[in-house]
Amino acid sequence: MTRFKLTLEYDGGVFVGWQRQDNGPSVQQALEEAVTAFCGERARVHGAGRTDAGVHALGQVAHLDLEKPTKAETLRDAVNHHLKPAPVAVLAAEVAAADFHARFSATERRYLYRIVNRRAPLALERGRAWWVPRPLDAAAMHAAAQVLVGKHDFSSFRASECQARSPVKTLTGIEVSRLAEAIEIRARAPSFLHHQVRNFAGTLRLVGEGKWSAAKVEAVLAARDRSAAGQTAPAEGLYLTAVGY
Amino acid sequence: MTRFKLTLEYDGGVFVGWQRQDNGPSVQQALEEAVTAFCGERARVHGAGRTDAGVHALGQVAHLDLEKPTKAETLRDAVNHHLKPAPVAVLAAEVAAADFHARFSATERRYLYRIVNRRAPLALERGRAWWVPRPLDAAAMHAAAQVLVGKHDFSSFRASECQARSPVKTLTGIEVSRLAEAIEIRARAPSFLHHQVRNFAGTLRLVGEGKWSAAKVEAVLAARDRSAAGQTAPAEGLYLTAVGY
Repeated sequence: MTRFKLTLEYDGGVFVGWQRQDNGPSVQQALEEAVTAFCGERARVHGAGRTDAGVHALGQVAHLDLEKPTKAETLRDAVNHHLKPAPVAVLAAEVAAADFHARFSATERRYLYRIVNRRAPLALERGRAWWVPRPLDAAAMHAAAQVLVGKHDFSSFRASECQARSPVKTLTGIEVSRLAEAIEIRARAPSFLHHQVRNFAGTLRLVGEGKWSAAKVEAVLAARDRSAAGQTAPAEGLYLTAVGY
Repeated sequence: MTRFKLTLEYDGGVFVGWQRQDNGPSVQQALEEAVTAFCGERARVHGAGRTDAGVHALGQVAHLDLEKPTKAETLRDAVNHHLKPAPVAVLAAEVAAADFHARFSATERRYLYRIVNRRAPLALERGRAWWVPRPLDAAAMHAAAQVLVGKHDFSSFRASECQARSPVKTLTGIEVSRLAEAIEIRARAPSFLHHQVRNFAGTLRLVGEGKWSAAKVEAVLAARDRSAAGQTAPAEGLYLTAVGY
């Protein structure tokens, strides 16, 4: 038996999320069915991050075990072939150590949250970014975001359905930058709470609009109360960009 | 009566093209219906470029005349409101001179052709770029593209259904650049023949793959014969980015 590590890109817009569910197509199911179509094995595909419905991936990582001796490149190309027409692509496949686990071995997750900040609604970027029509001050958003860095009780940014044992997480870094009408929020941490990055984005939007200050964000964090923070930004702006091991 | 100039973005993937046709939804029809829904007038919307089915726009320009006194900003916001859910956005609206014509006053068109050059198929970029799996040499493509610059008979790059009076056009500039796995071909000219940029892209791909040299592209141009050049690259990689006046 061989364990394989896969690096994945997908458009989350057509899935109920990473995880298999009864109510619609999942990324996990699409991959498992493609693996079965390729080699007949019913392998379980384990992902590093269980992205929600609508959330995209530029660098999700997953692993699976195959009995059949297979070259990594063959697995990559065959799974890509059988994934069609699902908008999932295996960017890379490689043989992994037998104890490698996509989720439990991961030491860092990186997310990107994309905002398009302009008066006109989205056409080409629809489903790929959060449309925010009011002008945002990206420099103020970046400055305020720095109060979130470090080890904190992030209860104010945690979804009620979050299954993490503790609300204490360590945010390694967060950067907010603007390129023309696009604002990018990039966050990295060993792991995140459910909706944490989307709740950061919803709160930083209020800073960008001039409604909240960095001190207010600090107070929101200290409140340890979800109702203290801003809205949960929509899933379609979120991308899992990389997983570190 | 007031003439308005509109700057438009759209996702060409769901349209039969810019121009009204009997066989499906067009960008022109979507805009004209939105204008009528806003003010009741049946205004004709004239575009600078009649983009084909699947071709996108980041900066198409159009004009229309309205009897009703209307602020440009109101027109922009109201048309955007009534366009929903069509993936078309009015980026800007402004009052234009009575003799301004989106098509006939234009002095320059700029197009972008996007290639994603990687082994894995497209997921997030599907319908937004041409997937070319074999490695391409963008520097060689750029060098070969320079033989196309200037005033030439471009019959080798002209669609059979092209309605232009003459195959002689002046290509002002063309640049090919790579950023990671994305290759961008940017071309500008006072006007283009039908499929000209897509035929450039299909030919430059052969250069990028090492099959054709710059001298071969020069010979293809001199042949004045469509069958001498490369394939017509797919519509989904093409973007009308700007129109100059």
